[in-house]
Amino acid sequence: MGIQLGIIGYGGMGGFHHRNASRIEGVQVIGAYDTDPVRVHAAEKNGIKGFSTLEELLSCDEINTVLVAVPNDKHMELCVEAANAGKHVICEKPVAMNVRELDQMIAAAGRNGKIFTVHQNRRWDKDFRIVKKILDSGELGKVYSIQSRLHGSGGVMFGWRGEKKHGGGMLYDWGVHFIDQLMWMLGYNNFKSVFCKTYHVKTTEVEDYFFLVFDLEDGRHVQVEIGTFVLKELPRWVLLGDEATAYVNDFSRNGGIIRLDSTAETKSEIIMTSAGPTRTFAPRPDNVKLESELPEVQADWSEYYKNVRDAIDGKAELIVQPWQVRKVLKVIEAAFQSAETGNLVSLRD
Amino acid sequence: MGIQLGIIGYGGMGGFHHRNASRIEGVQVIGAYDTDPVRVHAAEKNGIKGFSTLEELLSCDEINTVLVAVPNDKHMELCVEAANAGKHVICEKPVAMNVRELDQMIAAAGRNGKIFTVHQNRRWDKDFRIVKKILDSGELGKVYSIQSRLHGSGGVMFGWRGEKKHGGGMLYDWGVHFIDQLMWMLGYNNFKSVFCKTYHVKTTEVEDYFFLVFDLEDGRHVQVEIGTFVLKELPRWVLLGDEATAYVNDFSRNGGIIRLDSTAETKSEIIMTSAGPTRTFAPRPDNVKLESELPEVQADWSEYYKNVRDAIDGKAELIVQPWQVRKVLKVIEAAFQSAETGNLVSLRD
Repeated sequence: MGIQLGIIGYGGMGGFHHRNASRIEGVQVIGAYDTDPVRVHAAEKNGIKGFSTLEELLSCDEINTVLVAVPNDKHMELCVEAANAGKHVICEKPVAMNVRELDQMIAAAGRNGKIFTVHQNRRWDKDFRIVKKILDSGELGKVYSIQSRLHGSGGVMFGWRGEKKHGGGMLYDWGVHFIDQLMWMLGYNNFKSVFCKTYHVKTTEVEDYFFLVFDLEDGRHVQVEIGTFVLKELPRWVLLGDEATAYVNDFSRNGGIIRLDSTAETKSEIIMTSAGPTRTFAPRPDNVKLESELPEVQADWSEYYKNVRDAIDGKAELIVQPWQVRKVLKVIEAAFQSAETGNLVSLRD
Repeated sequence: MGIQLGIIGYGGMGGFHHRNASRIEGVQVIGAYDTDPVRVHAAEKNGIKGFSTLEELLSCDEINTVLVAVPNDKHMELCVEAANAGKHVICEKPVAMNVRELDQMIAAAGRNGKIFTVHQNRRWDKDFRIVKKILDSGELGKVYSIQSRLHGSGGVMFGWRGEKKHGGGMLYDWGVHFIDQLMWMLGYNNFKSVFCKTYHVKTTEVEDYFFLVFDLEDGRHVQVEIGTFVLKELPRWVLLGDEATAYVNDFSRNGGIIRLDSTAETKSEIIMTSAGPTRTFAPRPDNVKLESELPEVQADWSEYYKNVRDAIDGKAELIVQPWQVRKVLKVIEAAFQSAETGNLVSLRD
């Protein structure tokens, strides 16, 4: 059977799904609906059906799965309608404005016996898969700090992502990806508490920078920092272990794993800094550090659609499960609560 | 009158003070006492008096000021005895094992009408003075994040600094410097709360890594991370402002101030990452960023001794005041409390 896709919202992400999902075996893009007639026309020009109304799309029998790629504040209504029309539903991230909305979406899919999932595509990011592979391998020894950063210089949240009423802001836009990665990798019940600071650096309505720290039940901690106006870019990932340190500079395999060469001859010397001596932080010769390449990974975004296809066909368990995105959304709500109150917020159920 | 110095503890720091303080006008190093006869002999070999007992040093009339450079757990007792013997007191950092001890030291100096100060020499670190100058200048615009890091690869806390009973550990050893810098620079009453994680990465008794975040009353936040086994070194300082970002790589003037060139022609383009598109974090051409040099500063450690000398002579106010180090010590105690309980700890009085 596979996926016969109808796209709601033929903007940047809707077009992305059309171009990319249609290349996957068992996925056929049937048509798209948009409130903007220009975009409906664009869909037709791109060789799929253009629907001028939501009803047309939802009543199209060829379509068994609906992709919702519109601003956040319309997700709930459209996903519920699609499920009620008997369609499987793939929703763009962030899944909803709040957990209350999400619960209605999950309930609608359940009521209608349909699959409901969210396009958490960054679980297939190469940098993330590298980090996951390193952590799973245990090669850093006991890891105590996991640091996930994204620094840009654009200083802009584009379109509805800059508007509060549409559910914009950095926590929903990128935070939802990074927290999804971290919770999927480190365990959904491993997140004990969050402390978060948000700032409107270049934006008026929504935060375009946040920094948060997660305390984990297993004793480790996680630092997450995302900003559109951080002009000195730190590595995308830093992992601190008691045997080695790993870093990934960007979305690619650019980075390394650094350990000490136990055979290198070193002696501890006291060095002078401008105001005093230190032995603890005296620089050590370069040959003390051994840097190896990051592991190779297969990070194929098309796995996402293949999994949804197979889940629809009853051949696989869904990878991006509704209860997972619900956990992530609850954490984001807790992060906002922390930022507003200045308190540490518990993530225990 | 100036400083006629008697040194208690002629180890690494005691020797440092002898060599460096004696070069300063109005500072004369008279002699040193140590429990280790070899070190007493070393002092004599270096041309000053060697005292075999504390009493000899404290009863030496030539000495008007005592420098205490011994493990932390002996500071209180020795500083109180020195003050009771009618000496001004300079104590090495960390000043004491806890605030209770410090209060006894402050009281003893007060009772005897003597000056009591702590060798918080890193207020004269070049990197710190550069950061202070940048923040004071306002050239970054509104600053929202101040990040102070020190990453080493030694994996060792030397000597008593690795022992709990002597008051070792990274918060007392280096945390006390960095928190002193931050509170002196950002305002002692500006520190609202702290969340801290400590780890024993390579050490058994004491923490050799900590990460903490300060929430400030003025809305900004501060991240501090110090570790002896962080093999990917991030910059010593990162300052995020809404007009520019500054970074300092190490203890020197190595770093820069980055702002955007408003005249550069740019357009916002969507880029593909391995799992999806982004416009918000699309890399921008190099010419968009303008990097300027860090400001020049005068950072002269000898100012510390000159100030103590002038304070003794009634010509200047003490720069490192007892109430300041007391505030810092209270913050460190709060950080330990946070690390032990997993709670955010208030720093409001």
